[in-house]
Order: sequence, then structure tokens, then C-alpha cells
Amino acid sequence: MTTARSQTWFDTLKRIEQSVWFQSFIITIIIIAALTVGAKTYPLPYSVELGINYLDTLITVFFLVEIVLRFAAYDRKADFFKDPWNIFDTVIVIGSLIPISNTDMVLVARLLRVLRVLRLVSIIPDLRMLINALLKAIPKMGYIGLLMFIIFYIFGAAGAIFFSHINQDLWGDIAISMLTLFRIATFEDWTDVMYETMEVYPLSWIFYIVFIFLTAFVFLNMMVGVVLEVMSRETMAEEHQNQEDHHQALVDQISQLQQQVQALSDKLDRKE
Amino acid sequence: MTTARSQTWFDTLKRIEQSVWFQSFIITIIIIAALTVGAKTYPLPYSVELGINYLDTLITVFFLVEIVLRFAAYDRKADFFKDPWNIFDTVIVIGSLIPISNTDMVLVARLLRVLRVLRLVSIIPDLRMLINALLKAIPKMGYIGLLMFIIFYIFGAAGAIFFSHINQDLWGDIAISMLTLFRIATFEDWTDVMYETMEVYPLSWIFYIVFIFLTAFVFLNMMVGVVLEVMSRETMAEEHQNQEDHHQALVDQISQLQQQVQALSDKLDRKE
Amino acid sequence: MTTARSQTWFDTLKRIEQSVWFQSFIITIIIIAALTVGAKTYPLPYSVELGINYLDTLITVFFLVEIVLRFAAYDRKADFFKDPWNIFDTVIVIGSLIPISNTDMVLVARLLRVLRVLRLVSIIPDLRMLINALLKAIPKMGYIGLLMFIIFYIFGAAGAIFFSHINQDLWGDIAISMLTLFRIATFEDWTDVMYETMEVYPLSWIFYIVFIFLTAFVFLNMMVGVVLEVMSRETMAEEHQNQEDHHQALVDQISQLQQQVQALSDKLDRKE
Amino acid sequence: MTTARSQTWFDTLKRIEQSVWFQSFIITIIIIAALTVGAKTYPLPYSVELGINYLDTLITVFFLVEIVLRFAAYDRKADFFKDPWNIFDTVIVIGSLIPISNTDMVLVARLLRVLRVLRLVSIIPDLRMLINALLKAIPKMGYIGLLMFIIFYIFGAAGAIFFSHINQDLWGDIAISMLTLFRIATFEDWTDVMYETMEVYPLSWIFYIVFIFLTAFVFLNMMVGVVLEVMSRETMAEEHQNQEDHHQALVDQISQLQQQVQALSDKLDRKE
Repeated sequence: MTTARSQTWFDTLKRIEQSVWFQSFIITIIIIAALTVGAKTYPLPYSVELGINYLDTLITVFFLVEIVLRFAAYDRKADFFKDPWNIFDTVIVIGSLIPISNTDMVLVARLLRVLRVLRLVSIIPDLRMLINALLKAIPKMGYIGLLMFIIFYIFGAAGAIFFSHINQDLWGDIAISMLTLFRIATFEDWTDVMYETMEVYPLSWIFYIVFIFLTAFVFLNMMVGVVLEVMSRETMAEEHQNQEDHHQALVDQISQLQQQVQALSDKLDRKE
Repeated sequence: MTTARSQTWFDTLKRIEQSVWFQSFIITIIIIAALTVGAKTYPLPYSVELGINYLDTLITVFFLVEIVLRFAAYDRKADFFKDPWNIFDTVIVIGSLIPISNTDMVLVARLLRVLRVLRLVSIIPDLRMLINALLKAIPKMGYIGLLMFIIFYIFGAAGAIFFSHINQDLWGDIAISMLTLFRIATFEDWTDVMYETMEVYPLSWIFYIVFIFLTAFVFLNMMVGVVLEVMSRETMAEEHQNQEDHHQALVDQISQLQQQVQALSDKLDRKE
Repeated sequence: MTTARSQTWFDTLKRIEQSVWFQSFIITIIIIAALTVGAKTYPLPYSVELGINYLDTLITVFFLVEIVLRFAAYDRKADFFKDPWNIFDTVIVIGSLIPISNTDMVLVARLLRVLRVLRLVSIIPDLRMLINALLKAIPKMGYIGLLMFIIFYIFGAAGAIFFSHINQDLWGDIAISMLTLFRIATFEDWTDVMYETMEVYPLSWIFYIVFIFLTAFVFLNMMVGVVLEVMSRETMAEEHQNQEDHHQALVDQISQLQQQVQALSDKLDRKE
Repeated sequence: MTTARSQTWFDTLKRIEQSVWFQSFIITIIIIAALTVGAKTYPLPYSVELGINYLDTLITVFFLVEIVLRFAAYDRKADFFKDPWNIFDTVIVIGSLIPISNTDMVLVARLLRVLRVLRLVSIIPDLRMLINALLKAIPKMGYIGLLMFIIFYIFGAAGAIFFSHINQDLWGDIAISMLTLFRIATFEDWTDVMYETMEVYPLSWIFYIVFIFLTAFVFLNMMVGVVLEVMSRETMAEEHQNQEDHHQALVDQISQLQQQVQALSDKLDRKE
């Protein structure tokens, strides 16, 4: 950046990087990348498969060049890593550099190429905002999630203690028990699980009913909590601010009026 | 429409077309049409079947005449096609003109006749308003829908890559995988799918749990979003307007009061 | 009611009928009646069964006497039938008069006795209010319900037309088709139904996906509608009234102030 | 507590009991206790099992000492039992004193040890608040719950009366019937149950559809009720208070203004 020429080149780079057609072009490339990933799950003739592999290499190179250019377009390089979406993109691009050749790694390499579809999220501003909004809703769920986990842990341990000798596949240890409980919480063939244990412990239906009611109740409250959280954050906050503004406007206007009356009173005093 | 007589005829047409009894008559015909469609799914004696076929022809002709009359009742013919409900009706009526004779087309022709039930929606004003309201809720869901699709696409590709050799019917290619994922999202025998892949990849439950949590979380937020959208559009907006009116009323009244005090002050000044 | 004595007797009747202990006594009898109904579903020794039958006769007589007394306690007899809950009680009591002896009617007679549990709803005021509130939510759902029915009817007819030759038990006629669709809407083994038709029509998954999305979307909107309806009826209305009161109070106070200033102005005028 | 020394010791105890590091230490112990419970559900080598048993004894003793110290730290001992969370902790600690040796009691003793995980809830303030909030939502559900029970009872009795001869395992008596109905309410293989009874009573689908609609409708209203309850309790109440404060502020300010004008008027009177 010492010569004027490099400066010009740098500005051109920035202009390209932020232009609408460049963004659209990248979106197109991402969609093509997504389609090749999808196409590869179908049985294809060898020639097409070969073509897709070449295309894949091209896309990989393109993404690499794009992220390098984007990095280069930053005035202060450290700022690049301050935006989590840049880190997100970089990780995805680097991840897809693993070549699809080694038989052991081939599945992982293909999976990492699938994740390139996620770049759609980072490049479309509305999706990026949506994700940011979704992420904000998570902390509120923190303690409810912990409570849910405690419920699952206790019932999982109890299930493993009492039912493990009935069905090793469903209640073998606490991890398997918790998976079974998750299945019960989704109502997936839960009665089959229940009828099996009821043959040994006829009252074990209490275990399931209590668990279902507890999780449904806590889940319901979590849902309500999220609705309220989002509502008070968006609609209410705005409305609240509006009301505060109105109130302040009235208070100011009346204060002004009070001063007028005071001035009037002073005037009377002076006349005496 | 050049002679007075045709004008009179035209006005009569309009009056008929908009009269309550005519509307009720059309609704009755639509319901009869719907019932014949339903009746035809039962095994019927030949004579009844024949009667229904004649009735069907009658209804088809009636609908054709009705839409032609409705078209004729418009002053400017182009306006007819400006109302999407008119286009909707026209398409349905034209669609049901396909004769039920050719064996290849017989099923399609019968299906198009079923769609005549939809004319109920276009003729009952409350249903038409309801549909309009529902359609308005769709754009808000756009980006959430896109996000959902991306999640399904990525998990579908991953499923097709890792699990296709386990069960070709469930994970054969990306389309089948996404259908299987939709099934998992509806909790439909999802554990059967999971247990099958867990025999090969014992940790594949992570795939399912993460997918279920992601879709449930995004779906939950979509639901909240729709609730908020509808709420702020209907209830809140009205309430907000009411508050603005109140505020303005107070501001105006106090301003008036300020002028009164000002007048008083001026009067005092004049007296000096 | 011509003599003073009958008047006294009439007042006593009314007092008894409205006393708390009498209400509690009836509730106890209803619960006992409910328990006998429940007990009879278990295999019982003959002596107990006989005892329960005697108890049942006693309860029937008691309910009959109670409703007659309640009727007698009304000043104007016609008013008795103006309260729908009285009609509700009368129907239930009369219905349980059918003797349990004829083998054909025995099941119906027992079912009618089960309905006596519903008298709990009519006698506990909070439950009565709850039912009234629930009934109020129904009209709002009317058109959404009609729309839902139209969707079911169209898909039911389409299903019966295309799939009846695949599985007569699931798609035999339009009624069975609609039951199958309801099952699909509850996600109950819907993939089994789908996979079966996909073997003949590989694209029939579109039918199911579209149907599920449509019903889920309409149902979601119905739910939101009910939430809004109840909300604007209860919370909002109260809040709205409160704001109107506040606004009126401020307007009145400022008007008063304006009159004060006006009086001051008049006083100044008079002094001139 | 008669000597100064014991007083000092008492204060030290209190200080320790309320210090952050002590709280964190207890949380760590609870988590270790939870992990040992989980670990025991896996097959372990004898030595590890023995170690866990020793650890378990240690934890039991630690919890006992901790609760005794906590009790000792209270100035007035009766206050200890006024906090329901203290009673909760005491019951859990006493419950876990049952030794794991007797073969009959071993499962119960292990279950009681599992419940020690619940102490996490009582020691983390946020979780304690969350539980308190959840408990507050229950009373509102009381009458809806009763109504739900009545619906289940009536349909359960009807099911036991009509269907018990069809399938003894599903409709044998009223308790089993209600469990089956709960299964139907969760949509768990409910069509299998229905198809079975439809073979005997072809119209019995009405029973299921009515039951599902009733429970879904009541449940939906319960959900809405809870949302409204929580909303009006939290967001609305705060907002309402805010509006009341604003209104009062305006009223006070205008009153003050009225007094000013009154003073002005008096001043004019005095000048006459």
C-alpha cells in the first residue's frame, strides 16, 4: 500500500467485493456447489462424475480465492477476524480443502463440502439477521434446558436402575436410557416401551405418565418463555419507548405551561 | 350495448349476478357438485352412476354459463381478470371441461372436478377473507422456510453420504433422504430409522438429536414469529392508533390552554 | 302456594337448595355415582355387584328427587328451562332412568349412567364458567373449521380416486379416505400409508407433503387466532378500558384547569 | 451461644455457609454424586465399583454434615423449616441414608441416591426461581385439569363398557381404558386401536375423533390460558404499573398547575 497504484488496485478490490453482481455471482456458485453435492448422492455415469469432480475443484479454488480477496480488502487485517461470519466462512473454506481421495477420509471430506451450503446463510443478509435473532433466544432457554437435563438424568438413572434387566437395548445404561426417554418425549412408540416394563412392574405406567407430564409442562413453559422473551424484546419494547416519549412530551408541555403561569404571577407581583 | 334494450338486459344481468338468492343458488350447486364427486367414490348401481354423469354434465354447463354471465356483467372486460378470484374460478371451470371418457385422462378429469369444491372458497366472502389473511402470513415465513430448507438439504446430503449403504430405501439419494428427514421431523417411527443406523455407526443418534432440536427450535421460532406478526398487525396496531389519538388530543388541549394563558398574559401587558 | 304454610315450605325448599352443605352433598353423590360406574368395569363378586345395583337405583331416585325439588323451588316454572344447565341436568337424569335389564339396551343404559359424571360440570360454578368460556371460543373457529373440512374433502376425494385400487381399507371411499387423512394429520404411521402408494405412484409423496403443510399451516393459524381472540377479549379489553378511563380523567382535569384560567381572564376583564 | 467464643464460631459458620466458594464446592459435590449414580448404571470392574461405593459413603456423610451445619447456622432453629427448600434438602439427605445392602431395598436406596441430583435445583438460585415460577402456573391449570379428568373418566368408562370384550389388554377396566385414552391423546398408534374396534363397531371412529377433538381443544385452551396467565403476570403487570405511574405523575403535575392558577386568582382577589 505504499504506491498509488496498489491503492487503486485495493479500492477496485473493495468495490468489486461489495458490488451486488459479485454477491449474486457468489450466491450462484454456492447454489451450484450445493447442487453438485446433491447430485453426487445419485448413481451417475463415470463421465458426469468426473465432470462434477472437476467442477468441485474449480469451486474449491474459487472459494479460496474469494476469501483471500475478501481478507485482502480489509484495511486492518485484524478486523477480518472480528466478524464471526468471516471466521465461519474461513473455517468452511479451509475444511473443504481436504481432498476426496483417501478412502478413510472420503466421507468426512464429502461432509465438509456439504457444509459449503451454509455459506448461503453468511452471504444473504436476511438469513444472517435471522440466525443472529435465533441465537439471541438461546440464553433465555439456558436454565430451562438445565432443568430439562436434570429431569432426563434422574428419570434416565431411575430407568437404568429398575428396567435395565427388562430390556438391555432400551435401558442398558444411563445414556441409552436418556435416549429412550427422549424417544418417549417425542411420543415415538412409547407405549411399546411402557407395556414391556408393565409386564414386570404393573405400576410402571406412573413412571411414564409423570415423565411425560413433567417434560410437557416444562417444555410448554419454555415455549411460553420464548414467546414472551421475543415479544417483550420486539413489539413491547418499541411500544414502551413510544409511551415513554409521549409521557415525556406531555410532562415537558405542562412544565412549559407552569412556567408561563409562573411568569404571569411574577408579572402581577411586579405590578403591585 | 349500443341500444337501450341491451343496456336494460345488461343491468338485469348485473342485478341477478349480485342478488343473494343467486349466490345461495350457486353455493347449493357447488355443494351438489361436491356431493356427486364424493358419491362417485362409492360403488354405485349403473343407473345411479348414469344419473350422476348427467348431473355432472349439467353442473359443468351451469358453471360455464355462470362464469360467462359474470364476465358479461363487467363493464370493462379487462377488470374481470384483475380480480385473482375470477381467474381462479375461470381456471377451475375450464379445467372441468375435460370429458371423462378417455381412460388415460379419466383420473385427472375426475380430480379437476373435485377442485370445483374450491369454488366455495371464492364465493363465500368470509372464506375469501380468511384465505387472503393466510396468504399474507406466508412472506414473513419466507426466510425461515429457506433456512429450514438449508437444514434439510445439509442433513439430507449428510444422510445420503453416510447412511445410503445401510438402507437404500430411506437414504438412497438426497431427495429420499430429505423425505426421511421430514418423516423424522414429524416423529414418525424415527427411532426405527435411528436404531438401524446406530448398528453401523453407534454415535449416529447425535445426527438425529441435533436434527430434531434444530428443526424444532427453528419451527418454534417460526411459530412465534407468525403469532407476533399477526398480533402486531391486528390487535397492537389498533391499540397503537388509539394511543396516538389520545396523546394528540391531550397535546391539543394543553396547547389550547397555553394560548389561553398567553392571552391572559397579553391582557395584563395591555393593562399596564 | 295459596296458604302461608305452603309458602313457608317453599322458602325452606329454596334455602335448602341453595345451601352450601346441600351442594356439597350432591357433589358427593355425583362422585359416588361416578365411582360405581368405574367400579362396574372391574370383575366383581356377585354380592358387590348386587350392592352396586341397589346403590345405583338409590342414586337414580335421589337425582330424580333433587331435580324435581330444584324445579319446585323456582317461582316461575318456565324460568327453570331458560337456564341451559337445568335442561342439561334434566336430560341426564331422565336418560339414566332407562333400566339396566334388557340385554339390547344394557350398554346404552350403562353409557347414559356414565354421563351422570357430567353433572359435576353443571354443579361446580368454576367448571360451568370454564365451559361457557370454551363454548365462546368455538364460533371464531367456524370458518377455519369449514376451510379445514374443504381441504379434507378435496384431498379425500383425490385420495379415493387415485389410491382406492391400492388399498381398499385406507382409500376405499371418500369417508374412509378422510379418516385416513385425519390419521396422516396426526402423523400416525403416515409414512406406511405413503410408502404403499409410492410403490404405484412414485411422486405421490407430493400429495402427502402438501396435505401435511396445508393442514399444519391452517391449524397453526387457527391456534394463533384463538390465542388472539381470547387475549383481546380478556387482557386487552381490560387494559383498554383502563387507558380510556385514564385519558378521560386527564381530559376532565385539564378542562377544569381551562375553566379556572377562563375565570381568571373574566376576573381581569371585570377589573378593567 | 452463651460464651463469646461460641458466638464467634457461629458467625464463622454462617460466613462459610454463605460464601461463594462453599456454594461452588457443594455444587461440585452434587455433580460428582450425580456422576457416580450415572456411572453405576454401566458394568464396572469390581475395584471401580468398590471405589464408587466408598465415594458414595463419603458424599452421604458430607451432605449430612452440610445440612447439619446449615441448620446450626440458623439463629432461630424453627426458621430453618419455614423455607420449603430446606425441608426438601433434608428429606433428600435423610432419604439417601438408607444403606445399599439389603437386596429388597437396594433399588429403592439407589433411586433415593439419584434424587440427590435434585439438590442442584435447590442450590442454584436461578433454578430455584424457575421452579417457583413453574409452581405458580399450576393452580391456574386446576379446573382445566379437573375437566380433562372428567373427559378421560367418561370416555374411559364408555370404552370399558363397549370395547372390553374386543381387547381386554386395552379396555379391560376403567384404569386401563384411561391409560389407552392417554395413549390415543398422544397419537401413539391410535389408529391400530381404532381399526380393531371398528371391525366390531364400524362407527366407533366417532368415539376416537370426538375424544381427540375434545382433548385437543381443551388442551389448546389450557395452553392459551397459561400463556395469558404468565403474560399478564409478568410483562403486562409491569407495563400496567408503568402506565399507572405515568398517569399519576401527570395528574399530580396538573394539580400543581391548578394550585398555581388558583394562587394567581387569589392574588388578583387580594389586589382588589
